[in-house]
Amino acid sequence: MLEDLQRIRIVLIATTHPGNIGAVARAMCNMGLARLYLVRPEKYPSADADARAASAVHILYEAQTVQTLDEAIDGCTLVVGTSARERRIPWPILPARAVAEQVMVEASQAQGDIAILFGREEHGLTNEELQRCNLHLTIPSNPDYSSLNLAMAVQLISYELRIAAMNEPTAEATDNWDQPWAEVQTVDYMLKQLEEVAVAIGFLDPQNPKQVMTRLRRLFTRLRLDKTEVGILRGLFAFIQQRLAVQKSVDEPPAQ
Amino acid sequence: MLEDLQRIRIVLIATTHPGNIGAVARAMCNMGLARLYLVRPEKYPSADADARAASAVHILYEAQTVQTLDEAIDGCTLVVGTSARERRIPWPILPARAVAEQVMVEASQAQGDIAILFGREEHGLTNEELQRCNLHLTIPSNPDYSSLNLAMAVQLISYELRIAAMNEPTAEATDNWDQPWAEVQTVDYMLKQLEEVAVAIGFLDPQNPKQVMTRLRRLFTRLRLDKTEVGILRGLFAFIQQRLAVQKSVDEPPAQ
Repeated sequence: MLEDLQRIRIVLIATTHPGNIGAVARAMCNMGLARLYLVRPEKYPSADADARAASAVHILYEAQTVQTLDEAIDGCTLVVGTSARERRIPWPILPARAVAEQVMVEASQAQGDIAILFGREEHGLTNEELQRCNLHLTIPSNPDYSSLNLAMAVQLISYELRIAAMNEPTAEATDNWDQPWAEVQTVDYMLKQLEEVAVAIGFLDPQNPKQVMTRLRRLFTRLRLDKTEVGILRGLFAFIQQRLAVQKSVDEPPAQ
Repeated sequence: MLEDLQRIRIVLIATTHPGNIGAVARAMCNMGLARLYLVRPEKYPSADADARAASAVHILYEAQTVQTLDEAIDGCTLVVGTSARERRIPWPILPARAVAEQVMVEASQAQGDIAILFGREEHGLTNEELQRCNLHLTIPSNPDYSSLNLAMAVQLISYELRIAAMNEPTAEATDNWDQPWAEVQTVDYMLKQLEEVAVAIGFLDPQNPKQVMTRLRRLFTRLRLDKTEVGILRGLFAFIQQRLAVQKSVDEPPAQ
């Protein structure tokens, strides 16, 4: 359904050129998307942005400018990252069309918002940012020259979202999960709790963490947890923490 | 097959802003297209175009600048026009994805080149230009704001062509015509001949032609004629013309 496009947030991180922000607004509007989030834009507001937005300037006026990625994805149940680069730790990566279909199936089911993250013009998303994403998408392109302009990438993905919104979801694509998906924040709390437990039990050396948390984050983010699962994990970790605290108070003298 | 993308010509007609020409070159290169034709560009060559092309500037250097659409589509067996507007005489219009699939099936069969025409930034293609096209394509977009930037439109269509080139053509999409398709010029000659005949027999009043030739052109262009069919029609018209000439020489005194 086309109105489900209103559940999509386009999140631009640390955009360098304000003209690109304007071109993104126009590209979104052409495809019926409207919700733009700007995380630490370098120069904004800007006359360049307004000029490039043309008749879609209302999307700029309504855009949310925020300081952190956390604010931009607050309340989302699905976060998608755009990635062209090979990563040290590989992540499941799907072509834009398949992701768009999955996103619109999800958007039709009236859970939280869905965020699609776009990185800096020169460097894309950082590894840390990509690790916040449930899905990574790639735009098929010429391997000899795959560097798409930022607004072009938004245009292509917005187009795929619109096409997916116009089509009825196919039976096999329909998401029939029995529990609502967890919001990203609750998964983050759970991961922080897990890290504390891992350090407390001596499994993780905070001085030399290596890639342990990266791999755990990837595991739980890729998996997509529902609310019940997050509740179970958080309960489990809380119990472990309580036990350790009891043990600690038995083993050690109280702090001075 | 990806190499079939080399059979596609992107034809920009009377582009106003040279920056858009550069952005088109980059968009094409990102998707592996390389053959750019510029029909009467307003300002070109231009430093703006080179800047916006970024690392795809070689596509600009190899672009063909021509004065007429005829030159740009010379030797093509399929001409596709991009259209957003409603026309007085409707024409079959297909979404970009379906057209891209058809174009790449055709490109895989080693006939002539295939041209995709893009009009002026403000007004698109004229009716006359659209009538040169076998197929009209439309990019699905927000009906309240469907005016895509020129380079964005090229980006979306180049992307669809690349995706179609990556996929094996499905059996039903495979074109299994028994004769090679006619080149656009031979169809044009045939239409001129038909017009002469129509005037000669008094069917068409050259002082008040109404939409007769437009409708005939639409009929034969939409149909896509193969070489044999064009040969038959031209032979037929030539016979009619000979008969009329014989009759004329009997009926009328020779011209002074």
